[in-house]
Amino acid sequence: MMTERVRDFLARNPDLEPPFLVLDLDEVKKRYQTLATEMPFADIYYAVKANPARPILSLLAGLGSCFDCASPREVRDVLDLGVAPSRISYGNTIKKDADIRTVWDLGIDLFAFDCEEELEKLARMTPGARVFCRIVVDNTGADWPLSRKFGCEPEIATDLMLMARDRGLVPYGLSFHVGSQQTDPLSFNSAIATATGVMGALRSKGVHLQMLNLGGGLPAHYDRAIPAVGNYAAVIKAALAEADLNGGLKQIIVEPGRYMVADAGTTVSEVVLTAQRGDQRWIYLDIGKFGGLAETIDEAIRYRFVTKYNGAATVPSVVAGPTCDSCDVLYEKNVCQLPAALKAGDRVHILSTGAYTTVYAAANFNGIPPLQEFYI
Amino acid sequence: MMTERVRDFLARNPDLEPPFLVLDLDEVKKRYQTLATEMPFADIYYAVKANPARPILSLLAGLGSCFDCASPREVRDVLDLGVAPSRISYGNTIKKDADIRTVWDLGIDLFAFDCEEELEKLARMTPGARVFCRIVVDNTGADWPLSRKFGCEPEIATDLMLMARDRGLVPYGLSFHVGSQQTDPLSFNSAIATATGVMGALRSKGVHLQMLNLGGGLPAHYDRAIPAVGNYAAVIKAALAEADLNGGLKQIIVEPGRYMVADAGTTVSEVVLTAQRGDQRWIYLDIGKFGGLAETIDEAIRYRFVTKYNGAATVPSVVAGPTCDSCDVLYEKNVCQLPAALKAGDRVHILSTGAYTTVYAAANFNGIPPLQEFYI
Repeated sequence: MMTERVRDFLARNPDLEPPFLVLDLDEVKKRYQTLATEMPFADIYYAVKANPARPILSLLAGLGSCFDCASPREVRDVLDLGVAPSRISYGNTIKKDADIRTVWDLGIDLFAFDCEEELEKLARMTPGARVFCRIVVDNTGADWPLSRKFGCEPEIATDLMLMARDRGLVPYGLSFHVGSQQTDPLSFNSAIATATGVMGALRSKGVHLQMLNLGGGLPAHYDRAIPAVGNYAAVIKAALAEADLNGGLKQIIVEPGRYMVADAGTTVSEVVLTAQRGDQRWIYLDIGKFGGLAETIDEAIRYRFVTKYNGAATVPSVVAGPTCDSCDVLYEKNVCQLPAALKAGDRVHILSTGAYTTVYAAANFNGIPPLQEFYI
Repeated sequence: MMTERVRDFLARNPDLEPPFLVLDLDEVKKRYQTLATEMPFADIYYAVKANPARPILSLLAGLGSCFDCASPREVRDVLDLGVAPSRISYGNTIKKDADIRTVWDLGIDLFAFDCEEELEKLARMTPGARVFCRIVVDNTGADWPLSRKFGCEPEIATDLMLMARDRGLVPYGLSFHVGSQQTDPLSFNSAIATATGVMGALRSKGVHLQMLNLGGGLPAHYDRAIPAVGNYAAVIKAALAEADLNGGLKQIIVEPGRYMVADAGTTVSEVVLTAQRGDQRWIYLDIGKFGGLAETIDEAIRYRFVTKYNGAATVPSVVAGPTCDSCDVLYEKNVCQLPAALKAGDRVHILSTGAYTTVYAAANFNGIPPLQEFYI
């Protein structure tokens, strides 16, 4: 569903050339406030990588949000808004020496890591910094699961946190990620239990962690209805109570990215071409995998398309992007039901495209400029 | 193999911050001249989308190359060098009305299409233009096959070209694409036979095509040895002779992109992190799927990595990119043999990265800037 404000903006600007993204900042504000109300026990660290546009960062900074950053540039973008370094975490577990030095000099002192080599870097370059270890947890139920790229096994986390203490760092906490676009609230249950086990093991060795970072995972509304954020809050609250972590812990962190901005954004696209290929109808849009819709890789994220032919007869359609790249096809295994009347020149609204779109857009593929952005 | 000139450049510039691409223009020149010598029967249309850097376009323009463009921006980039519009083809089969109008006004009069709706656009907007129809051919043997996104069946091509004539366009020729990184020269054999069939059918209806566009497909040297371009030339020459097309045709076109620039470029990357995850070793580089190595999607293109530990003991390693994105993993199913000694801070040279790299780089993913480029 497009918001009223996006609808108004489009009505007032009929001549804008697609493709472009319109994002309703009021919706972001509402999301932030809902999350803050539903999870009063947690500090909200917005995952800047989801959409680092200045109007979003500025709005959230004003609302009191904290920020999770992945690079010196993201840190600078947030600091430029007057946000204190103490409200920023550096959540990327893969860091160059030069980048660690830069953000440490900028005052950041909260760092993620998940293996020994990364811990060594931090011990060497950020003495006394607070560190948290990312543990691997089950990602079942996530549409964009996180594989083995990030996170260590619980036993290794225990060893690494002891090592962190011995190397002059502050063993501050643990983090996990239940998988992006996680549609099962209960996934937080087992993840929190796993983290609780590590904390217990560390306590028995004299290390008392102060923070638990629940990561991201809260979903956006793509092709299916999703649980309300209150469902996640209830599961998390119960799991934290059962683990009796609330008492021992000084800080609970959540890192919403997709949840905060995805549904606030609508991409206005145009049909460039329709073609019948054998028995199959093809729809070619002016935005594809390399123009911002990279999360259609493996058809993982399935966007909703809205056209003016609402309610009219539909036909199964393969949806592809505009480039000369054969792999620039959005949905081929999962064909979309799109209006039979759809033709070149028609507009297609792609819903819930406020997160993980603009950031992926290639600077110059096929000579096509990056996605235009409007924040209203 | 890195060229001498790239090696010299790196020796003289030890302080450049990875990741960056260095591309040897002499190598591009050599490629162009080799191709021109091996295929004297063909006009070379460089596929600009492979790498649109101005030094490459400028060099090729000076050598007398023609250019295949995919967008108004690519057309302008080429025209800006003083190239005549008659040396440019517009090979994208998926075109917006506005883009057709723009390039037609710029003097381009050679257009690809592959379906009725696109033909209607051209008939309406570019009366009298030369058009060529892209037919679908077998892509077996290609590492980056082109699927059903492009090209129509031969029978449909016949109908469309008759329609083109009736609608006031010049039915100029046919094109096909045997698949990018095509390692089997014989693939051109059956493709040319298919095209010959269409031309014959059209001749019997009074339409005499003047051009055959053999597309791209000539490979670069990634993980495996590839046939020399002479092998492709021999197959093509024989197939053209057998089809007796040389006599009837005014123009043969080839559209090399990858062949022309891939092997000329080396990307200098740095190891950001190494980690042991269970039984598996992981190597994290400072460039990944969203920094330029998009052709590792589905592990389709397999680059060669060179380090200073030449000849030392290796271990199977998963190779991943530097972003917080779980799907930013380059090789996981096909693990790489990389030196056991490799550690954070070491440089890794990624060979044959001059094509289809810089163009894919995201403008700002995770706050990481696009790949730097040096043309020498």
